[in-house]
Order: sequence, then structure tokens, then C-alpha cells
Amino acid sequence: MGAKGRRLPRAVREQQMLDAAVTTFGQRGYRAASMDEIAEAAGVSKPLVYLYLNSKDDLFGACVRREAEALVGAVRAAVEDGPPDRQLWSGLRGFFAHAAGSPDGWAVLYLHARTHGEPFARDFVAMREEIVTYVTRLIAEAARASDCEPKPDEREVSGLAHALVGAAESLAGWMNCGARDGAPSAKEAAGLLMNFAWAGLDNLMQGRPWSPTR
Amino acid sequence: MGAKGRRLPRAVREQQMLDAAVTTFGQRGYRAASMDEIAEAAGVSKPLVYLYLNSKDDLFGACVRREAEALVGAVRAAVEDGPPDRQLWSGLRGFFAHAAGSPDGWAVLYLHARTHGEPFARDFVAMREEIVTYVTRLIAEAARASDCEPKPDEREVSGLAHALVGAAESLAGWMNCGARDGAPSAKEAAGLLMNFAWAGLDNLMQGRPWSPTR
Repeated sequence: MGAKGRRLPRAVREQQMLDAAVTTFGQRGYRAASMDEIAEAAGVSKPLVYLYLNSKDDLFGACVRREAEALVGAVRAAVEDGPPDRQLWSGLRGFFAHAAGSPDGWAVLYLHARTHGEPFARDFVAMREEIVTYVTRLIAEAARASDCEPKPDEREVSGLAHALVGAAESLAGWMNCGARDGAPSAKEAAGLLMNFAWAGLDNLMQGRPWSPTR
Repeated sequence: MGAKGRRLPRAVREQQMLDAAVTTFGQRGYRAASMDEIAEAAGVSKPLVYLYLNSKDDLFGACVRREAEALVGAVRAAVEDGPPDRQLWSGLRGFFAHAAGSPDGWAVLYLHARTHGEPFARDFVAMREEIVTYVTRLIAEAARASDCEPKPDEREVSGLAHALVGAAESLAGWMNCGARDGAPSAKEAAGLLMNFAWAGLDNLMQGRPWSPTR
């Protein structure tokens, strides 16, 4: 009982440190953020941050993994059963709502982790691959359920998933970083992307691809 | 004449240093790349690199600006006159051909400059905005030339351009970094994206948007 009592506050305090670190890294970037700032924002001493999270690199890595898990979890939780366009629409709303609601976490992943050295970039790439794989499966199911012949091959489906995920990331960046030029809300961004992507995918599923010679 | 004679070799040597720096930064990243390596690859002494380019930061900045200009120039040069889908198709082929043909320059921009500190990220964002603005104009022209009513508003057109550019970047990343899982050639990537994007945009231009309730 005693040991359990001591573990609980540690877990809680660790979460407070991670919350503070995500905010600080997200707003200031990896290099500019200092451990002093993060400890102050978390309301703890700097030695305690080092005791719990070991180093600035380890702390940043913990932030990246936590935020990646939260983003993937938000998308999975948002996807509703139903026809493929319903699934995609609900998943996109979940993605944009999470990005809009956690702008610092989004910045840690998409502005800072992405290229800040090997281990973080690897975590970022793993998260991205998980999302692309998930979307690939969704598109493959939609293709199987449709009447189109010939079915798009595996590589084509993977390419469509890469395109869709890239489009979503780009719109999320506009939403979160481009406020000056009338950036959209999460719901508008999801609607925009459905309009762009689904009408196109729908055509493909109906066997009406674009062709340079048509 | 004498002064001109001295300037020419300097310009040539500077280009050699930039070529070597783009290769080194592109393959190893900003932090891991050393000035020793770059000087050796350029076949000059390290003091000469510092004399010409001043510092590692300045050298990296010069690489980012040169590669950004080359990428935007390649897209502009590739766009052919004709109907909007022809313009987009030719521009996309230009984009993917350039990304496939200059993988180190592409990596400098998309893997390293993007988030490596303020001045480089700013140059990267400026390049991206130039491309988005260009694509926005293309989509706006297509909408004006079509019969669709109501025309998509300015923000919607801007959103479509952000989505299209993000999709292209994502496919270029797959093409350049994802060789293990059967990544596409430049021409395949351009065709994939036309299939995805144009059939969708075409529907929009014909006044057939996607709707969650249809």
C-alpha cells in the first residue's frame, strides 16, 4: 500500500512535467526551450525533472511518443462505423479536432520532432506510417466494396493514402500556423479535404480515373 | 579585366562548395555534417569555405535558398499552356522529376531546413507559400473557367491548394525515402496525384461537391 501511495504522485508529477514540456517545446522549439523554463512551468525543481526524465533528449522523446500516441488514438477513436466515406469523414474530423485542440502537441510532432535528429525523427516516421497504413486499409476496403474494375493495385492504394495523409497534414499546418490568412476551423478543414479527396476517390472507385488524353 | 578574371573562379568555386554542402547536409543532416567533410568533398581547404561562406549556418542558409529557388523554378518551367488539368499535370511532373533528380536538395529542404531553427524554417515557409500561391491561382482560374455555381470562395480555393501541395510533398517523401515498400517513379507519382486530385477538383468544378448527407 505504501509503495503504491508513493507511485501515484510520481505518475501524476511526471504527467505535469510532460504537460509543461509539451507546451514549452511546442511554443519555443527543442533548442530554445530550457530545462529551467520547463521545471518552472511544471512547478517543480530542475533536479526533479532530471531525476524523473533523465535528460532534455529523453524528456523531448517522451513528449514525442506521448503526443504521437494521443494523435493516433484520437483518429482511431473518432472513426465511426459505416460506409467508407463516413469512416473517412469521421476520422478526418477527429484528426483536425485533435490538431486544433492540442496545438502545442501538434507543433512538437510536426514542427520539431520531424527533423530534430535521428531518434525523434524515427518516432515521428513510425507514427506517420501507422496513420498511412490505417488509411491504406480504409481505401483498400472501399475499393473492394466498389464495382470498379480493374481494382486499383496495392501500390496505387498506398499512394492514395500517402496523398491523403499529406493533404491532411498540410491543411492542419495551415489551420494551426496560418491564422493571418483566414485559416479554417477543424470542421471546415475536414469538410474541405472530403470535398477534395472523396469526390476524387469516389470517381476512381467508379472506374473513372483521370487521364491526360481523355 | 583582371578583377573580372578573379571573380569568375570565385563564383565557380562557391558553386562547387554549395554542391558539396547540399550533398553532405542532405545525406547527413545539419548537425551531423561537418565543415571538414564539406571542404573535402568540395576539394578545397576548410579556411577557404569559411572565407567564402562565413559560417556553417550561413552555408546551410545558402544551400536552402539555392535549392528552394531551384525547386520553384523547376515547377514554373514545367507548367505548359493549356486547360487547367494540363497545366497541373505538367507542373506536377516537373515537381516530382526535380525531387527525384535532386534527392539531396530535396532532403535539405524537406527533411532538414523545415524545422532546423528560425532563419531556415522561414526560408522554407516562404518557398512553400510561393508554391501554394501559384497553385491557388491555377485552381482559381480553373474555377472561373468552369460552369460551376456558386464558385468556390477564396478560402476554399486556398484550402484546396494547401491540400494539393501537401499531397504532392507527401508523395515526394514516399518516392525519395520509402524505396523499401515499392516507392513510385516521378511519373507514376504525378499520375497518382492527378488521379486523386483532379478527378476530385473536376467534380467540384462541375458543381458536384461531396456532402455527408447525400
